[in-house]
Amino acid sequence: MKRLSRDVAIIGAGMSKYGMAGNRITTRDLFIEAYQDALQSVGKGIDPKQIEALYIGNATSDLFEHQLHTGPIMANWSGLIPRPAVRIEDACASSGVAFREAVMSIASGIYDVVLAGGTEKMTNLPTPEVTEVLAYALDGVSEFPSGFTFPGVYAAMCTAHMAKWGTSAEDLMRVAIKSHNNAALNPKAHFNMDIKDIMRDRQEKAAKEGKNYSWKFEMDFLSDSTQNPVVAWPLRLFDCSTICDGASCVLLAAADVTSNFTDDPIYILGTGQASEYPLHQRKELSSIMATKNAAGQAYEMAGIKPKDIKIAEVHDCFTIAEIIALEDLGFFNPGEATSDINEGVTKRTGRLPINTGGGLKAKGHPVGATGTGQVYEIWKQMTGKAGPRQVVGRDLDFGLTHNVGAHGTTVAVHIFGKK
Amino acid sequence: MKRLSRDVAIIGAGMSKYGMAGNRITTRDLFIEAYQDALQSVGKGIDPKQIEALYIGNATSDLFEHQLHTGPIMANWSGLIPRPAVRIEDACASSGVAFREAVMSIASGIYDVVLAGGTEKMTNLPTPEVTEVLAYALDGVSEFPSGFTFPGVYAAMCTAHMAKWGTSAEDLMRVAIKSHNNAALNPKAHFNMDIKDIMRDRQEKAAKEGKNYSWKFEMDFLSDSTQNPVVAWPLRLFDCSTICDGASCVLLAAADVTSNFTDDPIYILGTGQASEYPLHQRKELSSIMATKNAAGQAYEMAGIKPKDIKIAEVHDCFTIAEIIALEDLGFFNPGEATSDINEGVTKRTGRLPINTGGGLKAKGHPVGATGTGQVYEIWKQMTGKAGPRQVVGRDLDFGLTHNVGAHGTTVAVHIFGKK
Repeated sequence: MKRLSRDVAIIGAGMSKYGMAGNRITTRDLFIEAYQDALQSVGKGIDPKQIEALYIGNATSDLFEHQLHTGPIMANWSGLIPRPAVRIEDACASSGVAFREAVMSIASGIYDVVLAGGTEKMTNLPTPEVTEVLAYALDGVSEFPSGFTFPGVYAAMCTAHMAKWGTSAEDLMRVAIKSHNNAALNPKAHFNMDIKDIMRDRQEKAAKEGKNYSWKFEMDFLSDSTQNPVVAWPLRLFDCSTICDGASCVLLAAADVTSNFTDDPIYILGTGQASEYPLHQRKELSSIMATKNAAGQAYEMAGIKPKDIKIAEVHDCFTIAEIIALEDLGFFNPGEATSDINEGVTKRTGRLPINTGGGLKAKGHPVGATGTGQVYEIWKQMTGKAGPRQVVGRDLDFGLTHNVGAHGTTVAVHIFGKK
Repeated sequence: MKRLSRDVAIIGAGMSKYGMAGNRITTRDLFIEAYQDALQSVGKGIDPKQIEALYIGNATSDLFEHQLHTGPIMANWSGLIPRPAVRIEDACASSGVAFREAVMSIASGIYDVVLAGGTEKMTNLPTPEVTEVLAYALDGVSEFPSGFTFPGVYAAMCTAHMAKWGTSAEDLMRVAIKSHNNAALNPKAHFNMDIKDIMRDRQEKAAKEGKNYSWKFEMDFLSDSTQNPVVAWPLRLFDCSTICDGASCVLLAAADVTSNFTDDPIYILGTGQASEYPLHQRKELSSIMATKNAAGQAYEMAGIKPKDIKIAEVHDCFTIAEIIALEDLGFFNPGEATSDINEGVTKRTGRLPINTGGGLKAKGHPVGATGTGQVYEIWKQMTGKAGPRQVVGRDLDFGLTHNVGAHGTTVAVHIFGKK
């Protein structure tokens, strides 16, 4: 079994507001917001000079901002020149992989204190163009040229899951409702409101335009084809994560120096990463092999089982992705996640709270920022700093993050503990 | 002083032909050529299943091929799914940094055998478009919008060097002549011919077109404004590295398992990386701080001095970059590299052979492939496998590679030894 040569822990984490940042804000501005938040989060304080390297996840700054070589740009903007800076692009798993590289870099003996972060500015372009650019993360030989974009890819996986396990549109909607309810308690979420508030908002706007419509309860709204139109059947608007701007930042240290920075380090007990084929080469569309593989590595390294995990952030780029993830991570049996979700198991107050920050669905999905944004949420929860959305009444001794690149062609899984 | 937690060595390396690959060839095709060459280079053989992860340097596949997420694409094309794959984009230092990450990943304890490579397909687009896209690696706030592209940036550094040290156009040309002479012995080089052959080639073409011109010797040709026009004064055509297609691939293993693969492992004794400001924030343009910084780290870790290095591949994206590198790496005193070059010290037969494969200038500069392409050349030379261009008559006990991203905003330096 593989072990890290040195133990590594989180000493602080930060996040920018996720959402529409406006056209005057750039990738680097977003990162600085997260970076400063992370610096301030370090219990005993940190001198930026102590940070020895930067690992920056970013998927699209070259395409959206004509900015390649994002690593040293972030080093310069944050005042960290001459520290080495690595830009990692693994699509939506960019900062999950950056986090893993940062952990390994400390374990390698080269560094003691390292920054892992991610940043993405996506809202400058119209949605169809963003959708096209993101589709470049599919296989450029077999998938993109055949007309696939991500809603279509996940719709294919969704129909496979429906055919095999009887998953319904209502099952998907319950995932979205739960995520929005969590995001309502997260002031940094893109949609910092629950579904009812969103409905009220839309109703008021419609009334101003002289239109009128009625709604009774959440499910009505979500199945209303005017309010929740089909994007790629069976996925509707509220099954899709948001295109938004944002950044996140985690500070890591070798276990033997964490006491200089904090009294409650959160240790990385396990890390796993795997790759997967494009869709047409897969034998199975209703699960993602790379998730099972990466999670298997992480569980083995941590020496724990799925049932030991008390809280997790999973990659819900679409509602169906969350359902598949919960099964692939071993939290529920294949085909049974939906019944557990329907019983409230994954709610903030349930047995296994999932995506307490709102998930990609409602907290937002600034792609390069998502991986370390998940780590930020788990760190907040495990250190008891999550404010109104804090999970209470139990010891969150083991947490997990699950970050997916594209349609699972990359997956990074991390397991966290208080040691 | 920082040490790697585990020792790491090169067990094999491969390279594609560098040059104009044609429009039917993609980034992934180039990589497979280098990958297969690397597999075959492993003395005792290797089962691909033994490779545990891929680190892929690539700068522009998203912009040139609309292919993001290059890592798992290469894992799939090379039959290495489900192995984790990381794409690193640090401009022209992408695979130098990928190599460093691969070394650290083995030292971390996570892997025993890892692939580090780079690949770039650049010749599909017209040169002006390529030049523009590469300029995205400059600072998108201060440099690119002011009209800078790379020839201009290095021209500014060149005039600074000329003003400070009296460097002349002839000094630059001697670098180019040396590189082409080396490339003439390298069948995988983009320009597998020396300057005289290039002249003869051009003369024959001109004669066919009914034109006529005469030349006496190399310098005449290189200072002829019709044959060697100014690109960005004082840099002329033959001062610039080539836009070309290519890939490279290095196989690495933990020192304790190398004997399974080879009897002549080449150890990584030192690794260093640093970042640097954009031009307008620098106090000095005639040297690159990040080179000094990264080299300092690598020398310290290896426990050797610049004078101990017997062979080096340095980042000569422009002739002036080679001169500056030789000074910043400590091989020659500041301002004195040109006189040493003029005395033949850096020729293949000189005291310190530089860029024996032809360098970025003549071997070629497929940007993402360049870093591991440099490692390939050093590995070939140190293991005595360099064929007609093999440096003979001395023990190449210590080698060095120097890979620059953009105008030195990233630099990665590695030192190699036979142990």
